[in-house]
Amino acid sequence: MPSNSFGDFFRITTWGESHGEAIGVIIDGCPPNIEISEDEINLELEKRSPGKNPFTSSRKEEDRARILSGTLNNVTTAAPISILIENTDKDSSSYDEIKELYRPSHANFTYLQKYGLFDHRGGGRASARETAARVAAGALAKKILKKNGIELVAFVNSIGSIDINLDTTLSFEEIKKLKHQSSLFCPDPSAEKEMLLLLSQIKKEKDSIGSSVKLVSTNLPIGLGDPIYEKLSSNLAKAFLTIPACVGMEIGQGFKSCKLKGSENNDKFDVKEGKVFLKTNNSGGILAGISTGNPLDITIGFKPTPTIEKPQDTISVHGKKQVLEIKNFRHDICLAIRGCAVVEAMGAIVLLNALLQRNLLKV
Amino acid sequence: MPSNSFGDFFRITTWGESHGEAIGVIIDGCPPNIEISEDEINLELEKRSPGKNPFTSSRKEEDRARILSGTLNNVTTAAPISILIENTDKDSSSYDEIKELYRPSHANFTYLQKYGLFDHRGGGRASARETAARVAAGALAKKILKKNGIELVAFVNSIGSIDINLDTTLSFEEIKKLKHQSSLFCPDPSAEKEMLLLLSQIKKEKDSIGSSVKLVSTNLPIGLGDPIYEKLSSNLAKAFLTIPACVGMEIGQGFKSCKLKGSENNDKFDVKEGKVFLKTNNSGGILAGISTGNPLDITIGFKPTPTIEKPQDTISVHGKKQVLEIKNFRHDICLAIRGCAVVEAMGAIVLLNALLQRNLLKV
Amino acid sequence: MPSNSFGDFFRITTWGESHGEAIGVIIDGCPPNIEISEDEINLELEKRSPGKNPFTSSRKEEDRARILSGTLNNVTTAAPISILIENTDKDSSSYDEIKELYRPSHANFTYLQKYGLFDHRGGGRASARETAARVAAGALAKKILKKNGIELVAFVNSIGSIDINLDTTLSFEEIKKLKHQSSLFCPDPSAEKEMLLLLSQIKKEKDSIGSSVKLVSTNLPIGLGDPIYEKLSSNLAKAFLTIPACVGMEIGQGFKSCKLKGSENNDKFDVKEGKVFLKTNNSGGILAGISTGNPLDITIGFKPTPTIEKPQDTISVHGKKQVLEIKNFRHDICLAIRGCAVVEAMGAIVLLNALLQRNLLKV
Amino acid sequence: MPSNSFGDFFRITTWGESHGEAIGVIIDGCPPNIEISEDEINLELEKRSPGKNPFTSSRKEEDRARILSGTLNNVTTAAPISILIENTDKDSSSYDEIKELYRPSHANFTYLQKYGLFDHRGGGRASARETAARVAAGALAKKILKKNGIELVAFVNSIGSIDINLDTTLSFEEIKKLKHQSSLFCPDPSAEKEMLLLLSQIKKEKDSIGSSVKLVSTNLPIGLGDPIYEKLSSNLAKAFLTIPACVGMEIGQGFKSCKLKGSENNDKFDVKEGKVFLKTNNSGGILAGISTGNPLDITIGFKPTPTIEKPQDTISVHGKKQVLEIKNFRHDICLAIRGCAVVEAMGAIVLLNALLQRNLLKV
Repeated sequence: MPSNSFGDFFRITTWGESHGEAIGVIIDGCPPNIEISEDEINLELEKRSPGKNPFTSSRKEEDRARILSGTLNNVTTAAPISILIENTDKDSSSYDEIKELYRPSHANFTYLQKYGLFDHRGGGRASARETAARVAAGALAKKILKKNGIELVAFVNSIGSIDINLDTTLSFEEIKKLKHQSSLFCPDPSAEKEMLLLLSQIKKEKDSIGSSVKLVSTNLPIGLGDPIYEKLSSNLAKAFLTIPACVGMEIGQGFKSCKLKGSENNDKFDVKEGKVFLKTNNSGGILAGISTGNPLDITIGFKPTPTIEKPQDTISVHGKKQVLEIKNFRHDICLAIRGCAVVEAMGAIVLLNALLQRNLLKV
Repeated sequence: MPSNSFGDFFRITTWGESHGEAIGVIIDGCPPNIEISEDEINLELEKRSPGKNPFTSSRKEEDRARILSGTLNNVTTAAPISILIENTDKDSSSYDEIKELYRPSHANFTYLQKYGLFDHRGGGRASARETAARVAAGALAKKILKKNGIELVAFVNSIGSIDINLDTTLSFEEIKKLKHQSSLFCPDPSAEKEMLLLLSQIKKEKDSIGSSVKLVSTNLPIGLGDPIYEKLSSNLAKAFLTIPACVGMEIGQGFKSCKLKGSENNDKFDVKEGKVFLKTNNSGGILAGISTGNPLDITIGFKPTPTIEKPQDTISVHGKKQVLEIKNFRHDICLAIRGCAVVEAMGAIVLLNALLQRNLLKV
Repeated sequence: MPSNSFGDFFRITTWGESHGEAIGVIIDGCPPNIEISEDEINLELEKRSPGKNPFTSSRKEEDRARILSGTLNNVTTAAPISILIENTDKDSSSYDEIKELYRPSHANFTYLQKYGLFDHRGGGRASARETAARVAAGALAKKILKKNGIELVAFVNSIGSIDINLDTTLSFEEIKKLKHQSSLFCPDPSAEKEMLLLLSQIKKEKDSIGSSVKLVSTNLPIGLGDPIYEKLSSNLAKAFLTIPACVGMEIGQGFKSCKLKGSENNDKFDVKEGKVFLKTNNSGGILAGISTGNPLDITIGFKPTPTIEKPQDTISVHGKKQVLEIKNFRHDICLAIRGCAVVEAMGAIVLLNALLQRNLLKV
Repeated sequence: MPSNSFGDFFRITTWGESHGEAIGVIIDGCPPNIEISEDEINLELEKRSPGKNPFTSSRKEEDRARILSGTLNNVTTAAPISILIENTDKDSSSYDEIKELYRPSHANFTYLQKYGLFDHRGGGRASARETAARVAAGALAKKILKKNGIELVAFVNSIGSIDINLDTTLSFEEIKKLKHQSSLFCPDPSAEKEMLLLLSQIKKEKDSIGSSVKLVSTNLPIGLGDPIYEKLSSNLAKAFLTIPACVGMEIGQGFKSCKLKGSENNDKFDVKEGKVFLKTNNSGGILAGISTGNPLDITIGFKPTPTIEKPQDTISVHGKKQVLEIKNFRHDICLAIRGCAVVEAMGAIVLLNALLQRNLLKV
């Protein structure tokens, strides 16, 4: 099975290498009559772009999306939408020196073993640059969801040992606002301060640090997801585990609930104007794989960036012990920050597919 | 998209309700010339069957698989294999009383909202009984893997706050042996003792308790899984999140690595007889979505069983506050125990699909 | 890819060998709240059953469908529907003698070459017996279509050189009535007479004869089918070419239009009460892969049954020249007759999938 | 389901409108280590390009393919291959006048009904221009097949009532040579002469004419295609019916065999050096959906081009009777000629998928 497509209804197919001419995405299955402009996509791309703070890559990707097909006068026609983003600030020079070294916890070992080749220039297809194409497609998915009243926000949940502590009375809108006031996309200002200190320290050490992202939603209808093998939770899990460096995913109380009793963890029902609903949300918005009408509450874990500035012992493809040293270092030292945009994009694509599956779309 | 099938090459399609006449599975895409008997499948079903200890359901499912097609003289022919398991010990009486009550953290709320109906007798399709069909298909998948040298074992990793502490020098065979010596499928005898005490306590309280399972493998080849959207990790995540009550999944160090530095978490390479390999396995056997040749190391979290013997406040479908009380209680109070068989089955099906995808099968 | 499933929304998965214990089908994706009984399915199976005239197999398949899952009180629940049909009149004795002979224009040559084995008893999976499972699933598809006002009828269009000559003013209902008055499912009584004579002659010669089926519909909505690779015509073509012995398919004027000029073949538009429609139907109900609102008009060709009573020269699996002689001959000598039921089933399944795809279902 | 992709292993996804900025194709699932250059693709595109004779469109599409991803130094890397073809000679002016008229037997009626919009400029997505993207992908598929010894050739089989009469002793190579000596891609020089006269006449009449293409192969291995729903014949039928204006498809003797007896139509076996084979090929290279090792022999019918220069009565979108007159006419008057390249491309893609499915690829 080809492996560069995602989604059964609103299907994205991404292409392009980090240091190739361009990257892009084909969106197939987008409903007709949706207004969408290149500017709207570029706005979303900007949230993923580096350079907002000193802890993300210094690569200057002024990503500009061009829509090559699928719209007529900025309105979708149901034809496939081809979006192209040129690679402008590619600098492959620093990769030549290390092209024969296995990079610890990086893709080049498994790619070389699998295919007998690896596009070392910027990591080729394995580079997180591919996620820009997802964010471009996600911009459209998010727009369609929003027209249906549904919104998602992903924010930094932890960096290293610093967990955020979010006031549970905050509304969706308030969380979103706090997130965008933070250069780290962290809605808890006091945690953010600590995180900034930690990141400075890590940067000084020429190291990187693990982190996590939380995704929440508002206004999700009941009934998304299908029993047994197409649960909403299963498809979200698959989606998030496709993001580079993602090491785990939990829903609602997640691994915390593995330590609880049923009487503690079970959600309570309540009724209001004859309508039954869950007044607690330990299930994170999904029961038996189907959305409950409560907000999604999902945590996605990212390992520390494997590429670090600090020299590392490694082995060359010829089996020799060598030291890997990255010159002209242009990597994020913490992945959750720019990862928020990718989590939102993938979440939006899964939800839109579930809506299309369920014929719930109003456009 | 129909939602009762899983797998692109070795595809299972399960059917049947908990209290219907029978349940079953069609396996489509099994290679020809594999020996398989009903006995071998029944042996695997037994590992999932209740009644081994006082903490799993007292339903007496003496599950007997019948192979109705796809074999000739106990050898597969490449035709679809239809396996049928009759439902013998179904007792729907206790469900009549509660059929109009929403059950906290259970499927019946979302099913009713989605479909306007719910087969209340034993939970219908939403019952974990469906997983018996997965285990039957998994028996065949495991057999084919074993012929290719690959084995999997899933075991209880934690119950409540009791985590196992496994001697890291144990071989795969030793872990497997320890697991099967334990009535809780827990390979750490000292943790098992504590778990037995905890479970007795929980049972006395008419409550249930959360738990987790760990899955490890041996002899997995390098190169399984495909870049971007068909990563081995993504497909495993999807598979495990389809198991009822699964709330999360992590690979390798998982959420622990979210707190680490790159220099701590990155796996080290080594070389032996000219062959490069990972001498640490923080990545849990998968890098960039592709198997590294190291053992899989995956943790799957289960929430506490939502159905408990203790009375619970709830709401009826008519919006009235009522108390839910389960008579003739026949549920597991901890899901990881019987869940091991299901985790192994799903893991085996994902790996076999990856092998078939990669044309690595030797049969 | 597994090859025993068909349909992306209402998906059938068939299983079982001609002389195995049973055959069956799983229907996954059937909407909930459809009434369906075993009797309704059996009625449809009867149309495919042999023995209505002397020219179809003398195998006495009193096919009785059992619904094992997916319904509650004869109403669908959205869970997968498992239908099982036992093989009652299987007689494998006559196959033992010929099991080492390649049968001209039969499946056993290609199956043996591909798999290294062939279930010779009644043709195993390659037998047309598999189509009974399609007809069972088709019964449900036809019922759902009918609730949406849509009906299909397939009838014998030609046998050997005898083509029917249908009065073009006949209504859909009249065609259906004429078809069911004919033991050959041929709605042209005068052609039927000739066909009966021809078939008697062919039977005397211990030979078989080619034939074709026409499929027409009523009340099909505009807009079914999707541009480029999921055209309604493409999916119908695929569906019909999966029927054993099908050698071709044409839509509307089909190959006749290959000889015409555009000015002759182009359909004319007309308008009635402000609604534009095609007043001619050379396109057979489909333009650019999308239904026009006119009736489907599709011709499906069947080669003469390859298995004939007359002795035939052949080669054994050991490479020896031998004579193939079928004892206890129980085959149809003309495939279009019983083929009508299969064509209707496959047509209904394709149309239902297109309706579900397009969210046009009213149930 | 998205509808712009084709193929389960070597999957093409095409995008772009006739008069948009560009069209293109993503090839996902191409094996690594295949040499491919833009020149090779352009060579294939040239076979589809108009302007070789006066009977094909005068649009000057000097199609130049650019490979934007998936190769490194002209060698495939297993990453998705993005090919872009700019639309250079688009002239939409002539479409403005007719944009409110339904065009007889053309896509604009069904598209407007389905989507509420139609990209009238050159037919948008419904234009046969889309097939250039298929030919580009087919160039790669054909190259891989050729490395495996397999070749395909499609040629004009009939135009109007003129059928070719091919010497049955001609080799594959001779047919290919004769085809490419003909400006009509017709390997029978005497039929070609008549065709040229007929086409001149049709052109004078400002009309168009129906036609058919035959596809043959050489060196196809036994065993391609899968039982029941993924027959080689079914997948070829689906593929060819996706080509614009295709009205039917038959295999081997096709509809001719509907008039024959079994004893006449059954293929004869023979044996040579212990190897059994079919010495006749009425089955057209496929039995029971699986390739026999004989050449493919498939006929594909095309209706006459619906767009003709001659004025036609029609109805406007406002329901008024009007006359449709195409100014600046740039259409083919016979579709089989340029259709050969598209038939070869789709045939190659189906065969390559079957090879990949069966793990038979040697590269």
